[in-house]
Amino acid sequence: MSVRFGLLGAGRIGKVHARAVGGNPDAELVAVADAVPKAAKDIATAYGAEVRTIDDIAKAKDIEAVVICTPTDTHADLIEKFARAGKAIFCEKPIDLRVARVRECLDVVAKTRATLMVGFNRRFDPHFMAVKDAVASGSIGKVEQVQITSRDPGPPPYDYIDRSGGIFRDMTIQDLDMARFLLGAEPVSVTAHGSVLVDREIGRHGDFDTATVVLTTKSGQQAVITNSRRATYGYDQRIEVAGSKGMVAAENQRPVSIEIATAKGFTRPPLHDFFMTRYVAAYANEIAAFISALKTNTPAKPDGADGLAALLLAEAALRSVAEKRTVQVKEVAG
Amino acid sequence: MSVRFGLLGAGRIGKVHARAVGGNPDAELVAVADAVPKAAKDIATAYGAEVRTIDDIAKAKDIEAVVICTPTDTHADLIEKFARAGKAIFCEKPIDLRVARVRECLDVVAKTRATLMVGFNRRFDPHFMAVKDAVASGSIGKVEQVQITSRDPGPPPYDYIDRSGGIFRDMTIQDLDMARFLLGAEPVSVTAHGSVLVDREIGRHGDFDTATVVLTTKSGQQAVITNSRRATYGYDQRIEVAGSKGMVAAENQRPVSIEIATAKGFTRPPLHDFFMTRYVAAYANEIAAFISALKTNTPAKPDGADGLAALLLAEAALRSVAEKRTVQVKEVAG
Amino acid sequence: MSVRFGLLGAGRIGKVHARAVGGNPDAELVAVADAVPKAAKDIATAYGAEVRTIDDIAKAKDIEAVVICTPTDTHADLIEKFARAGKAIFCEKPIDLRVARVRECLDVVAKTRATLMVGFNRRFDPHFMAVKDAVASGSIGKVEQVQITSRDPGPPPYDYIDRSGGIFRDMTIQDLDMARFLLGAEPVSVTAHGSVLVDREIGRHGDFDTATVVLTTKSGQQAVITNSRRATYGYDQRIEVAGSKGMVAAENQRPVSIEIATAKGFTRPPLHDFFMTRYVAAYANEIAAFISALKTNTPAKPDGADGLAALLLAEAALRSVAEKRTVQVKEVAG
Amino acid sequence: MSVRFGLLGAGRIGKVHARAVGGNPDAELVAVADAVPKAAKDIATAYGAEVRTIDDIAKAKDIEAVVICTPTDTHADLIEKFARAGKAIFCEKPIDLRVARVRECLDVVAKTRATLMVGFNRRFDPHFMAVKDAVASGSIGKVEQVQITSRDPGPPPYDYIDRSGGIFRDMTIQDLDMARFLLGAEPVSVTAHGSVLVDREIGRHGDFDTATVVLTTKSGQQAVITNSRRATYGYDQRIEVAGSKGMVAAENQRPVSIEIATAKGFTRPPLHDFFMTRYVAAYANEIAAFISALKTNTPAKPDGADGLAALLLAEAALRSVAEKRTVQVKEVAG
Repeated sequence: MSVRFGLLGAGRIGKVHARAVGGNPDAELVAVADAVPKAAKDIATAYGAEVRTIDDIAKAKDIEAVVICTPTDTHADLIEKFARAGKAIFCEKPIDLRVARVRECLDVVAKTRATLMVGFNRRFDPHFMAVKDAVASGSIGKVEQVQITSRDPGPPPYDYIDRSGGIFRDMTIQDLDMARFLLGAEPVSVTAHGSVLVDREIGRHGDFDTATVVLTTKSGQQAVITNSRRATYGYDQRIEVAGSKGMVAAENQRPVSIEIATAKGFTRPPLHDFFMTRYVAAYANEIAAFISALKTNTPAKPDGADGLAALLLAEAALRSVAEKRTVQVKEVAG
Repeated sequence: MSVRFGLLGAGRIGKVHARAVGGNPDAELVAVADAVPKAAKDIATAYGAEVRTIDDIAKAKDIEAVVICTPTDTHADLIEKFARAGKAIFCEKPIDLRVARVRECLDVVAKTRATLMVGFNRRFDPHFMAVKDAVASGSIGKVEQVQITSRDPGPPPYDYIDRSGGIFRDMTIQDLDMARFLLGAEPVSVTAHGSVLVDREIGRHGDFDTATVVLTTKSGQQAVITNSRRATYGYDQRIEVAGSKGMVAAENQRPVSIEIATAKGFTRPPLHDFFMTRYVAAYANEIAAFISALKTNTPAKPDGADGLAALLLAEAALRSVAEKRTVQVKEVAG
Repeated sequence: MSVRFGLLGAGRIGKVHARAVGGNPDAELVAVADAVPKAAKDIATAYGAEVRTIDDIAKAKDIEAVVICTPTDTHADLIEKFARAGKAIFCEKPIDLRVARVRECLDVVAKTRATLMVGFNRRFDPHFMAVKDAVASGSIGKVEQVQITSRDPGPPPYDYIDRSGGIFRDMTIQDLDMARFLLGAEPVSVTAHGSVLVDREIGRHGDFDTATVVLTTKSGQQAVITNSRRATYGYDQRIEVAGSKGMVAAENQRPVSIEIATAKGFTRPPLHDFFMTRYVAAYANEIAAFISALKTNTPAKPDGADGLAALLLAEAALRSVAEKRTVQVKEVAG
Repeated sequence: MSVRFGLLGAGRIGKVHARAVGGNPDAELVAVADAVPKAAKDIATAYGAEVRTIDDIAKAKDIEAVVICTPTDTHADLIEKFARAGKAIFCEKPIDLRVARVRECLDVVAKTRATLMVGFNRRFDPHFMAVKDAVASGSIGKVEQVQITSRDPGPPPYDYIDRSGGIFRDMTIQDLDMARFLLGAEPVSVTAHGSVLVDREIGRHGDFDTATVVLTTKSGQQAVITNSRRATYGYDQRIEVAGSKGMVAAENQRPVSIEIATAKGFTRPPLHDFFMTRYVAAYANEIAAFISALKTNTPAKPDGADGLAALLLAEAALRSVAEKRTVQVKEVAG
């Protein structure tokens, strides 16, 4: 039996998930809801689904699971609503920008025993999965140092920045989750640096555009995250894990892998232009993992606890920058 | 309006094309025919199509185009049948193993003014397309030397070899088409070498498993094709074009692009295991190009003439091996 | 006219410099001094030089320049001695492990107007020089983030660690200099993390074997250094500079660059086994730059001030680890 | 004891060998002869050698070995002279452009039992040696197909072409030797194609500038050589060997291995500009192998028979082009 889905939010990321659901042989997109009727209609038409209201989807007997792609400030409310409605929930990160609200929300999830999976899609990228598999297989021994380089092609609009919670909660959070995923142990300290180098206006909006974060675990493992809101050469997404027996790395991906040699040198085309093209397979695999968890009645990962953990690291990073010191995660975890 | 398709042949390559048609927003798979009812049924079910007979598909008013994926010895008959039935035809290579039969068939296509596209899918691989674009843009100047390395992971079954027309007509033909595509001029001579190095039994079946072919054009451009029926490291598919101003190359593709470094060195995983995974995008792009040609009423390429031209080069290669000399294409073109 | 050299110290690094001097067409190795007569003899014989005492070399009229490769705790005394003796001095890093002693020594150098060049050889590696040139040419715009990965193949003996001043003063110092070289602005803050992951005994000797250091400049540029005392896959030496217009990177070097493909994947041999083979060209270029400075009467760089600056960054790193906070360089610069 | 050398010919390649001899700890350059006194003087001065006449070198008691770097048409005479004089001989390829003359010369070498090594330097390139070692170790199983791509940055002067014996005897001959080296079996057939694509004037001088050669051995192994007299991107020198268990390849070498990423893509600098910089290590290793053979009294390889064998393949290639057919090596071997 296919898993029947409702899609909440028909914006950019909603389309990505609609494609993932629509292209999955074990899933069916039944309904789409969005504040903008045309956006909902377009996706619904493309995948043979209906336009419904969020309330109708919550009540619908022909829908078992929802994908939440609405604006961040609605995530926690919707998770609670659909948890209470008995639906399985896949929610885009973050659950909320406030730790306390995330905790409340996860309490509801716990009480209702709802399935909640959080959208850290990069865990499902085939290349990063292969890195994780190499680590898990013991090929590189015990993990000692993780290096994550993550640069967006260009900064988002200022109004997005205003609502985003800042670079650590919005962008770095993906890398913080990846660091947790690869370290295989929980970070206990966070040291962060934030600069405004790309666009001074971003600083005026109270955010950074360039960041470096160092995480350490109890045993002394180190993870370094290097972020920028700009990379002229495309969407820079690399990870590297060094261990006692070796190292494993995933290089950048590009849409075409040709090389042109002339008197000026050997040139390969730029990287993917952004996450929509870079992480096509990751988004499909992510939804497939969610569906598989539902069908096999096994826990869906990453879950709410992972969402909270990454947010706490982002909080600690913010405090570290403000206080120019290493912050223990337990300080922000309360 | 979507283009409505009938699929003839529900075997391995039939599934590949069903996916390409089914996944294309401008196409609809309406009917599937196959001598094995279950095979037809499986594909029909997966894509919401019906099982029909070939005759019914030929007569069907709700079908404008067919994809022919049946055994090679039926291709020419089916092309003629569907050309007369007024359907647009996409046919897997080759049209036929015999030059005379291909010519007869193309006469029917010409008289009926049918659209016929032949399945040289590699022309639609994104990486090879980018090579072609680089050549076309003048980046490397005038084309002088083309190098194509093409190795299958392992040899096909002996009964396939018996029916295949031999390595030149079955395997090299893709590379011969690619050489024509990249040279930008018609080859006038063919020199070929064939050896049996992989499996002596292949020799007993009258075929080679290792081949090298050199093509030259009137102006003296050279193309070298290196083939083997075996590559332990995966499906080896590389092209390289050198010209007066530079060179452009497309490297091998791999399912995951990680690298593991240990005391033994730096290791990347093997290549794709075969054409079904290597050329996923190529098959999708190929059908998309066919659909686009139908919708815009423009010629579909590569067409029957391309199919014939590649077959003539394969014929010349066979004669070159037999007579240990360079064969002029006009000798076999008659 | 050739520059006539005395070599002080005929150990491992002494041999490297003897080769650099001996192979330079503008230099002549005249004398070698070492506490171990045989060591001095071997080098002297190989390069047609004499064995002399340090005092004799200081007094020698046929020697214009010395290369100091003796143990670290003799560097400052020897620099002062030869500065007073009117010789040009090339000294291996560090000048001394104590900031105050370095300052005293540099005072003598200043007063005597001696030429002093300090052995940060990596600045002269052809690949890193090309990175610097790319940065200097403006290819990548304004420098924003520098990433330096530097891992030794294996840890040094414990008695070396005891004398080394610790990982930051001994190993990281090279990377601190490289960061200064590439940032193009002086770091103002240092945040460091040190762990013992490779060998617990190193911890018992009061040192770390795994480190991460983040530097920032006044404008907010960031440099990240990742260090380990172990890398099974060879001597890992990479740098990467990202700027407003792009990025430039120098990959690892290997003694042979072949790749072997089998059913297990594509394998390249390990990296160079250590600095002696990795930095052959750098050592030769470094001495050539020193000689060129002498012959053209231009300043030799990196000089004593560079040596001091890198040491101050190492001091700040040590304090940062101890106090779990970001340390301003001016705190240690006094 | 050092081997004492005389150098015959102080031109471009003479300088390369002078550096190899001068830099070898087991060799001493004693004398240099050249028709141009200044050329001989310059090298002699640089390496502490004397200028002498060829006759004096032949008679000299303090010289055991000579390196012949004079014009090709003097090679055979000089080999005979120095063989009779009891000197060990290292001679640049080719021995002579005429097969009959080579045979006469080798007869003298045989009768005098002189040591003769022929300068196919590429066998001593570290990367190509590693390829050979990988083949010899059985890593890739039985050798089936060899691919050699060899392109010069630009064509030589017309008067050089007039004297060179043509592209096959002058340029391809290095690749023919490499093919023999890597195949591990003697080629029995040669099929060649020659074109004039780079410069029509080269055609008017009776030569080709673009060539493809296919060799086969008795068991059916195939080697393909792709040559051009022009490569805008630098000196293109690649080899690849495919076998029953895998493949091994040596990629191009570059003076610096950085990569610059901008909005236009990822660019690496061009390759080495020619053999003098590309094959520095090969020339040094080659002379070291010659010296080692002399010191250990073992055969020096490649020897006169190797020089003859490569020339015969070049002869066969010429005949193949002229007669547009595959030529058996025994046809030209007589």
